[in-house]
Amino acid sequence: MGNLRDSLFAPVESEIVLVEEGIKAVADVDYPWLAELLGYIVSSGGKRLRPALTLLTGKLKDGCNLDLLIPVATGVELLHTATLVHDDTIDLSHRRRGKPTAANIWGWGIATLAGDYLFSKAAELVSQACNIRADRLFAQTLTALCTGELEESFTSFDQNQTRQSYLRRIGNKTASLFSMATESGGIVAEASEEAIQALRSYGYNLGMAFQIVDDILDFTAGEEELGKPVASDLLQGHLTLPAILLKEQYPDSNPIRAIFEKREKEQNLELAIEMIRSSEIVPECYRVAQDFTAEAYRALEIFPESPCQRALLELTDYVVERQK
Amino acid sequence: MGNLRDSLFAPVESEIVLVEEGIKAVADVDYPWLAELLGYIVSSGGKRLRPALTLLTGKLKDGCNLDLLIPVATGVELLHTATLVHDDTIDLSHRRRGKPTAANIWGWGIATLAGDYLFSKAAELVSQACNIRADRLFAQTLTALCTGELEESFTSFDQNQTRQSYLRRIGNKTASLFSMATESGGIVAEASEEAIQALRSYGYNLGMAFQIVDDILDFTAGEEELGKPVASDLLQGHLTLPAILLKEQYPDSNPIRAIFEKREKEQNLELAIEMIRSSEIVPECYRVAQDFTAEAYRALEIFPESPCQRALLELTDYVVERQK
Repeated sequence: MGNLRDSLFAPVESEIVLVEEGIKAVADVDYPWLAELLGYIVSSGGKRLRPALTLLTGKLKDGCNLDLLIPVATGVELLHTATLVHDDTIDLSHRRRGKPTAANIWGWGIATLAGDYLFSKAAELVSQACNIRADRLFAQTLTALCTGELEESFTSFDQNQTRQSYLRRIGNKTASLFSMATESGGIVAEASEEAIQALRSYGYNLGMAFQIVDDILDFTAGEEELGKPVASDLLQGHLTLPAILLKEQYPDSNPIRAIFEKREKEQNLELAIEMIRSSEIVPECYRVAQDFTAEAYRALEIFPESPCQRALLELTDYVVERQK
Repeated sequence: MGNLRDSLFAPVESEIVLVEEGIKAVADVDYPWLAELLGYIVSSGGKRLRPALTLLTGKLKDGCNLDLLIPVATGVELLHTATLVHDDTIDLSHRRRGKPTAANIWGWGIATLAGDYLFSKAAELVSQACNIRADRLFAQTLTALCTGELEESFTSFDQNQTRQSYLRRIGNKTASLFSMATESGGIVAEASEEAIQALRSYGYNLGMAFQIVDDILDFTAGEEELGKPVASDLLQGHLTLPAILLKEQYPDSNPIRAIFEKREKEQNLELAIEMIRSSEIVPECYRVAQDFTAEAYRALEIFPESPCQRALLELTDYVVERQK
């Protein structure tokens, strides 16, 4: 898997550059202390997968107005950034992408406000498309994201998290933003209603697969690649698909109860990681992810072949095969 | 000053009831834990001054579509509620309007997410008016609110806060929402551009006066009326107009430096309160507030006399004369 920029994002290469500029421009404010804070947050990088989805889906339609599409793609990425800032603040995370978090440097009060500020900038950017449907989708997506995060907080260390509640939760906290990214591409490009619904389905299913793979990597990757401890979700009391399958397969003798009850936490955590890695759980999780990407792939069948369509199809492989 | 509902809000009495219902409806969600959290927050009351402003300004125009106006007024109030939830979270406030804060009960992580959720619901409600300009104004207002709050955080315990920086700060953190409330009334009612600008000016100036009076009451009212300690701003390192005038009048011998440096804090705080209460500072602050309400009053002159116009004019007295 090469660099996303050089391969999958090729059809929107010049537009991604403009999105990057739009992201950096958020820090162009009169107050030096605010410029520093925002500059720090928005320069922390990222794959830019979500804005690329907006650009690729928008450009599926001939004659899509890029002056409207680019601010929306930029807004999608800033919405993602805002949620990360709040996540880090709430989780008391010290590092993200190898750098100290804003909450770590400026304190969580200021980090909370910085996240709010980025929500508003994201909303402003989306509103530049002058499209009521895009504005409403933005608001509904933020509601879904918050619902997912709240469900995560409310159910942490709850032994009764199920596969169903897991799928609902990641649908809200991750797939909603992917589906907004792709649906708003179609909306801004004034695609047909059939096309918009197909793009929505594509984004949703891609997002589901993306999060499942994230949750697999949380157990299978090393601390270095993850940039955080292995099995950090389990440590925070969140049952993701691998852990739920472990519970399903060993209902009477799995180490999760002990971890949640903080009994011999380290040994039991190591045991859980080992049980997941050495069993059929990981391939099973990948099968679930692939079911979603197959659905995403099918949603694109109604579109004629084009460089953007090919890139979107290839992204369904990327999200499953990626190593971080 | 009688009950706002019975006097100033009389021309929008039935609409305010619908706003109340819309606010309560936010807690109608499938997740019981979320319904409880949201229900607690939105049932905490409030004067409903901001949504009343949207209703009164919208209804200045004959034939204003109430089906569009009411969701926007509801969104304005929820935006206000969301900012209060985040303020309480950031300030670690234990009580608001005589009840424990959400942060106090559910912890600040969940309270932060609840605030985010209310932002999104506010945006959804405003988007129901299907008005691009209202959507954009909403986003810009959130940016201003965050900027004001961030400036407050960044400059706390800074001795060099000036009258100018104070006015800019309250313009962002308070007047922006008042001016959004009144401007969006005009926008949704499809008033003329001249009328919209007049309503914007009215709301901005009313909001400035409102905050200045809040800041006066912080020194002159009792702990009981305030529902928090007297001079709580000063304790948190924020210089408001009365404190800035104290510094201006006694540049060499005022107790503020000592309070900010936490030297004999209690005695110096009492001294500051006494110096402000017994001097010409309070009347001078009221004069500044009245300059703003006079400007608000003038902005309404272009509108023909009507019950809504009269209520808006009377509100300029209310914000200055209120005791809490």
